Amino acid sequence: MLSFNYQGISNIMAQRYVRIKTAQGQTYYGLLQLNRSIQVLDAPPWLQGQPTDLELAPDSYTLLAPCAPSKIVAVGKNYMDHAVEMGTPVPQEPLLFLKPPTTITAADRDIQFPPQSKRVDYEGELALVIGELCVDCTPEQAQGKIWGYTIANDVTARDLQKQDGQWTRAKGFNTFCPLGPWIVREVSAGAKLQTFLNDAPEPVQSASIDQMVFAPDFLVSYISEIMTLLPGDVILTGTPRGIGPMQIGDRVRVEIEGIGHLENTVVPRSAPVIL
Amino acid sequence: MLSFNYQGISNIMAQRYVRIKTAQGQTYYGLLQLNRSIQVLDAPPWLQGQPTDLELAPDSYTLLAPCAPSKIVAVGKNYMDHAVEMGTPVPQEPLLFLKPPTTITAADRDIQFPPQSKRVDYEGELALVIGELCVDCTPEQAQGKIWGYTIANDVTARDLQKQDGQWTRAKGFNTFCPLGPWIVREVSAGAKLQTFLNDAPEPVQSASIDQMVFAPDFLVSYISEIMTLLPGDVILTGTPRGIGPMQIGDRVRVEIEGIGHLENTVVPRSAPVIL
Repeated sequence: MLSFNYQGISNIMAQRYVRIKTAQGQTYYGLLQLNRSIQVLDAPPWLQGQPTDLELAPDSYTLLAPCAPSKIVAVGKNYMDHAVEMGTPVPQEPLLFLKPPTTITAADRDIQFPPQSKRVDYEGELALVIGELCVDCTPEQAQGKIWGYTIANDVTARDLQKQDGQWTRAKGFNTFCPLGPWIVREVSAGAKLQTFLNDAPEPVQSASIDQMVFAPDFLVSYISEIMTLLPGDVILTGTPRGIGPMQIGDRVRVEIEGIGHLENTVVPRSAPVIL
Repeated sequence: MLSFNYQGISNIMAQRYVRIKTAQGQTYYGLLQLNRSIQVLDAPPWLQGQPTDLELAPDSYTLLAPCAPSKIVAVGKNYMDHAVEMGTPVPQEPLLFLKPPTTITAADRDIQFPPQSKRVDYEGELALVIGELCVDCTPEQAQGKIWGYTIANDVTARDLQKQDGQWTRAKGFNTFCPLGPWIVREVSAGAKLQTFLNDAPEPVQSASIDQMVFAPDFLVSYISEIMTLLPGDVILTGTPRGIGPMQIGDRVRVEIEGIGHLENTVVPRSAPVIL
């Protein structure tokens, strides 16, 4: 049942926190070992989950998205060069939108191309995972509420985004938030974010995450003054320049240095996969 | 602990489905009896919850919002006279936005006026509660997925709505979705929706819910072609003409004929009440 790509795994020293489903249908949080087995935790790690005696062999589980957020809060135009390519000014404050939790899909799962759209774009992004309740936090307090980091693809039906004005439909289709494959506790400030399409050696997006207009601690503080953030909630921090369309059959891969990579394939819309 | 108003309760023949918290901190779904006690159910009623032997006396529980949705999908400008008062055309398709679940507050709880805004408006609305998983449904199928109806106030920071373009912040503050007090299984097509401010005898909003541009079954079908709807999810069906500001200290009451009324008081922003 193992379907994700471990290329480069031995170069990653950081602990990798995953969420998985067993062949028997049980869902667990766990630690991914170098031999690809899973050490099962008794709760989400941000809720003080501790290792149990249960260890799962590499062929006995399916990887899920690494958390199950009550909400996904995303930030628009948070890299200056992306705002420029969209022909819009950089916002004076973070520009927020929401993706419903039903957009989430795991690494190596499909992105479904909906029939309502003629243009569906990738947007590679750094995702923050909130570790504890966060309301009206300062940026200094907010830094301590960020439990870890993962990779997201903020898939967007570009034509519907322009047509609707509100971005909810364009960014809200099932499978429009690939997330994972795992969470790490730290990411370096200058880590490179790159997006690749199919087998092309050159990335379509390439930036350093320190090119964000509003940094993660500021974003979490800003959002917490609006809505309470809960453990496991996810913040998408915006995409850099280079957004573009995907076609059915394309494979899209978002890489963040020090985390890993998130790869998905584009297929036609179909009934949801219940994981 | 009982804090809601039973005025007119004896005129309501329909079964009223509630969600409550006991003084001991347990949360239950239940049926509200005419003597104000609660017959506890063993699961949410849309998940075939059955009555248990547990009955709670009127002074032994606090009313919560009647469901705990994984998402709140709302529809903008779904009454023609409201689109006109906003100076905008009626959309050709439903215009969707999301409110995070953290906006939910119960009947007779406070609406918190955030310091970021100078103008916070009421928007009285009919809310639909989804009973079963719904994906790519036709309007005919969708009708069967609507388990019941309740009342919502889609509270909106009007100045931030205009300033941001995206409505997420303006409609996403904690307590910006009063919901309840209970769910009923049916509402008549011509039911009157009215909003009252303080002790004024004249409503500030008054319409019949059949004045919606897009009817409930069409809305649920339309949304289900974008995002999977889950049991307990909530759809806000839009507000009629007459929106306007509230001040700190104001009481706002939304009434829907055949359901009841939802009353809340406006207070300054503060730490969240954990119910």
